Amino acid sequence: MSIDVINLKHKFSKFKDLWSPKVIGELNNYQFKLVKIKNDFIWHKHDDTDEAFIVIEGKIFIEFVDKTAEIDQGEMIIVPKGVEHRPYATKEAKIMIIEPRGVVNTGNKKDKLTAPNDDWI
Amino acid sequence: MSIDVINLKHKFSKFKDLWSPKVIGELNNYQFKLVKIKNDFIWHKHDDTDEAFIVIEGKIFIEFVDKTAEIDQGEMIIVPKGVEHRPYATKEAKIMIIEPRGVVNTGNKKDKLTAPNDDWI
Repeated sequence: MSIDVINLKHKFSKFKDLWSPKVIGELNNYQFKLVKIKNDFIWHKHDDTDEAFIVIEGKIFIEFVDKTAEIDQGEMIIVPKGVEHRPYATKEAKIMIIEPRGVVNTGNKKDKLTAPNDDWI
Repeated sequence: MSIDVINLKHKFSKFKDLWSPKVIGELNNYQFKLVKIKNDFIWHKHDDTDEAFIVIEGKIFIEFVDKTAEIDQGEMIIVPKGVEHRPYATKEAKIMIIEPRGVVNTGNKKDKLTAPNDDWI
């Protein structure tokens, strides 16, 4: 069994594509995914799970129906299941997402931004 | 429903005790816990769950039967279920632990370091 130390900066250096989650580890049936984001994502929701966002570098926004959250480096937010949300970033930002294995990034929407799952780096 | 932005530095400023996990958020039945650690913890294991450690500030070590992992700020490690481990830090370090609700910090051991669960800050 390998128990590796995972360096986030090193992992982020291994990819450049935006809105395309890369898996770096699994905790039971949950995955830790790194994502680089810039500009607008689409409105969507995840009916079966909450979703945690931790901002590793930069600043992101998550628009909800009634407000917009600003999440800076060193901050996190947990979007409850079933809640419509739209992430975006004005400058490229680096985030970590934690959610169950198999969750699709665009949730209930099929879109050109829909990314493949289980893309390990 | 409140969807709050969680600032890790602010949350860490709210407590001083060591080895005493503070809950800052829940993702389904999982919890995000902040812990300040220094000196030695005890050997223990969690038979029913993996356990993720993210180092937010400082450096920690996790001793396993056959090696010791050094985990610096910006790094993380996932300890698989059933694996004996002993965390320690030579200087005070700040970490985030992610694991299912109800997991006891000393796992299969009852010790003076055993901390109460669900201590929200």
